[in-house]
Amino acid sequence: MTKENVQGAAEEEQQAQSKKGLKKQQKEAEKAAKKAEKQAKLAAEQQEADEDDFAKDRYGICPMVQSQQKLDRALVRVQDLTPEKAEQQIWVRARIHTSRAKGKQCFLVLRHQQFTVQALLAVGERASKQMVKFAANLTKESIIDVEAVVKKVEQKIESCSQQDVELHVERIFVISQSEARLPLQLEDAVRPEGEGDEEGRATVNQDTRLDNRVIDLRTTTSQAIFRLQSGVCQLFRDTLINKGFVEIQTPKIISAASEGGANVFTVSYFKTSAYLAQSPQLYKQMCICADFDKVFCVGPVFRAEDSNTHRHLTEFVGLDIEMAFNYHYHEVIDSITDTMVQIFKGLRDRFQTEIQTVNKQYPSEPFKFLEPTLRLEYKEAVAMLKAAGVEMGDEEDLSTPNEKLLGRLVKEKYDTDFYVLDKYPLAVRPFYTMPDPNNPKYSNSYDMFMRGEEILSGAQRVHDAQLLTERAMHHNIDLEKIKAYIDSFRYGAPPHAGGGIGLERVTMLYLGLHNVRQTSMFPRDPKRLTP
Amino acid sequence: MTKENVQGAAEEEQQAQSKKGLKKQQKEAEKAAKKAEKQAKLAAEQQEADEDDFAKDRYGICPMVQSQQKLDRALVRVQDLTPEKAEQQIWVRARIHTSRAKGKQCFLVLRHQQFTVQALLAVGERASKQMVKFAANLTKESIIDVEAVVKKVEQKIESCSQQDVELHVERIFVISQSEARLPLQLEDAVRPEGEGDEEGRATVNQDTRLDNRVIDLRTTTSQAIFRLQSGVCQLFRDTLINKGFVEIQTPKIISAASEGGANVFTVSYFKTSAYLAQSPQLYKQMCICADFDKVFCVGPVFRAEDSNTHRHLTEFVGLDIEMAFNYHYHEVIDSITDTMVQIFKGLRDRFQTEIQTVNKQYPSEPFKFLEPTLRLEYKEAVAMLKAAGVEMGDEEDLSTPNEKLLGRLVKEKYDTDFYVLDKYPLAVRPFYTMPDPNNPKYSNSYDMFMRGEEILSGAQRVHDAQLLTERAMHHNIDLEKIKAYIDSFRYGAPPHAGGGIGLERVTMLYLGLHNVRQTSMFPRDPKRLTP
Repeated sequence: MTKENVQGAAEEEQQAQSKKGLKKQQKEAEKAAKKAEKQAKLAAEQQEADEDDFAKDRYGICPMVQSQQKLDRALVRVQDLTPEKAEQQIWVRARIHTSRAKGKQCFLVLRHQQFTVQALLAVGERASKQMVKFAANLTKESIIDVEAVVKKVEQKIESCSQQDVELHVERIFVISQSEARLPLQLEDAVRPEGEGDEEGRATVNQDTRLDNRVIDLRTTTSQAIFRLQSGVCQLFRDTLINKGFVEIQTPKIISAASEGGANVFTVSYFKTSAYLAQSPQLYKQMCICADFDKVFCVGPVFRAEDSNTHRHLTEFVGLDIEMAFNYHYHEVIDSITDTMVQIFKGLRDRFQTEIQTVNKQYPSEPFKFLEPTLRLEYKEAVAMLKAAGVEMGDEEDLSTPNEKLLGRLVKEKYDTDFYVLDKYPLAVRPFYTMPDPNNPKYSNSYDMFMRGEEILSGAQRVHDAQLLTERAMHHNIDLEKIKAYIDSFRYGAPPHAGGGIGLERVTMLYLGLHNVRQTSMFPRDPKRLTP
Repeated sequence: MTKENVQGAAEEEQQAQSKKGLKKQQKEAEKAAKKAEKQAKLAAEQQEADEDDFAKDRYGICPMVQSQQKLDRALVRVQDLTPEKAEQQIWVRARIHTSRAKGKQCFLVLRHQQFTVQALLAVGERASKQMVKFAANLTKESIIDVEAVVKKVEQKIESCSQQDVELHVERIFVISQSEARLPLQLEDAVRPEGEGDEEGRATVNQDTRLDNRVIDLRTTTSQAIFRLQSGVCQLFRDTLINKGFVEIQTPKIISAASEGGANVFTVSYFKTSAYLAQSPQLYKQMCICADFDKVFCVGPVFRAEDSNTHRHLTEFVGLDIEMAFNYHYHEVIDSITDTMVQIFKGLRDRFQTEIQTVNKQYPSEPFKFLEPTLRLEYKEAVAMLKAAGVEMGDEEDLSTPNEKLLGRLVKEKYDTDFYVLDKYPLAVRPFYTMPDPNNPKYSNSYDMFMRGEEILSGAQRVHDAQLLTERAMHHNIDLEKIKAYIDSFRYGAPPHAGGGIGLERVTMLYLGLHNVRQTSMFPRDPKRLTP
């Protein structure tokens, strides 16, 4: 093509594209216009009705909250609506969870987070016919402000979290309207699995949940799961800070794959390319070599594994620990297991409401743990498995089914859902794992398990540049690529050990859930990148 | 080529590559062999010397700590060596900071983190000539265990952090040896800028520091900076958790650029491609739409900006807040400024040692703040700048020099290093910013400044799907790409506001430092991807 032709073609393409864009924008504009028209119609109807409505100032749709004014009005939270507040006149902001009109009355269930309360509008002195009709027509999930009197009730309201009171509504204003057609129903989304099938009621499948995560996260179950998960992070950090650990921030964009070249995502980095860190491993070790002694970090780790299982994500949150020790890596195991025990205790003592809320939908046994934590050697585990009829070699890695079986055997024998498996075969661990001084086939490495699934992998690391070089060569790792890492051990390095915990797995297994996507707000797997 | 030829070529290439690999490995092996030889020679020499050495069991090089035994030996930390321990016999693990032989004596300065103590070996009853010589020959930065008696000193030891005691060493064993030639000297790395030039002493430039970050992080200054930074994170979270916030984890791999298409890194994601999140913006807002009400997250954010300034990184740590409010976004500003004030107070009260340590190398004025925090409107700021002779339009964005000048003007007038600038012109803010209800040229948005530099950018967000669509169209944003985001506002959304804080900037500006690379452990910029 001549230069002009090329330019012509480019222009045409551009025009085609902008036409397409224009069409889309026109469509959107039409939609908006229709909506505006509909709203105008509603407003007109309302105005008409208003004329003979004594309560017309007691309800309506507020203009969008644009910070027009600083209103000096206290809002009471739904969870704080208890008999102590009886006969008080209060304001509440909540969502309309359900709405049911019945003659001259309208019953609403108002919801805020995990908490619900019944609200009543009745035609009478404080509410007109039009006002009750207005309330009855509000769409589910709309956010409203109501002024109401708190009333004690004779009979407990079983369907609400606030069972001893109801609200007698005197004013009702819409803060944010929901579209009428919800992509999923919250009642369906919290129905226990199986119950739906039996009674012919709907449950919501996982993809629908995840596609409409903003709605799915509003369920009592999701609210409880992620509040508890926030607690896991807090307990993890508070325990470690009390032990003298320092929080570090490690880079996620790195120049060489931290755990070998497989399963790593590539990033375009200006004129070159880089990788996403598969773990903070090398960096937390460098911090140990830099005298921080005890470090932790909480952050995303990335694995380009094409595995679509219940427990794999391509991006998850790592709770990472690394610690210099004096003479034996069991000092570090003790620190980590104590941290886990503090987390378990903290969850048990501070998050009982959340645990019970999740159990309603997903029943499970309370999580059991021992003090001190049970520590088994790999050899013992293999012996237990063999005694149970499993055929495997002494230095073979554990398959996922064997891990689960082992979990059941350990639970039967020791009555614990949490234990450490120590002294893994050297061959199945990464190159930086310290070999066992007494048996070169084994190593100073360990995994930790919750309900039979691995939640932490860790080890004493090789802190000697020469041995590290040898081990890397043995694993056919390109020494050039890990030069900075190996060099960090050349100028005096304390013996150290550590481990990495998967946050989503801890939450899942503590609560006895069965899919890690339930404990990741916006999960990423080979097939899911949105929302 | 025929199939065989192709295969042949591939094999040749493979052979060439493995030859190259082999050569490298041979070289490494030779190196290792040389090192082993040298060590054998040293051992032989030592053995020879041992024969007439009464102290031969009192010093030496320990075998690599491989967790051979659980030693029941308490190690005292250098920072705990005070006159209360005088005359006690203790064990200490530390690095050799400096070493100086003088006749029959050897003076060591031992260092652990920010703390140093003097240690003395003298030929006599407890130490032989050979033992003192051994100590004198140890390389700087080696890690040693010493058994010693703590002795009070008559005259303060000015060069050490522990000024009132010294250690009289009775046993000395090397735990990890440093190579003799350090890539940089720690004394040089803590020397105040300028002092080097005057006295002809060396200082260390930034690239050398960053290239050898493991050594540079050992300096008292670095130790202090990153301990304080860990404190910033802790104070940030503790304050917010006390206020009822929930910690969330948002995905970093996303399917559409969160803040528009520019400045975004691309990731290969299996058979498709994805982006690295430029902020958790969309996700924290979705959490608000999902009823979490008050959320925060701490995590990496990625900006593919090719700017090589003192305050830009391509990867930094975001401290992000998002919060539903009742009637006015100033409720959120008040929450954020109170959080910042709690951080400033916590640092001032708990990290005074760290602040003073950093000040020794980088002097700066103590950080000043007011309660309540000063809030200025953008219009007032423009007026102040104009009064100071700056020519600018009323709705023009602030340039970096103008921000700095404004910081100085505010400091002069109000005596504070921290303030909020409210009501930015709408045109200079992202599409999701809520317009000012009283003046369409302005918006409900704000920045926060420390020592005249921006550390937070935030706003009330548009929580209405229709207005959001209009604003996105106005900014020529492809609606298809942000569909999931806009859809999250269709089912009832509370009014909300928030902001994102740059962790490294907060640390830098609080301490009065001048480059954000000083407060990032392993900084990433367009030119730096390692270590």
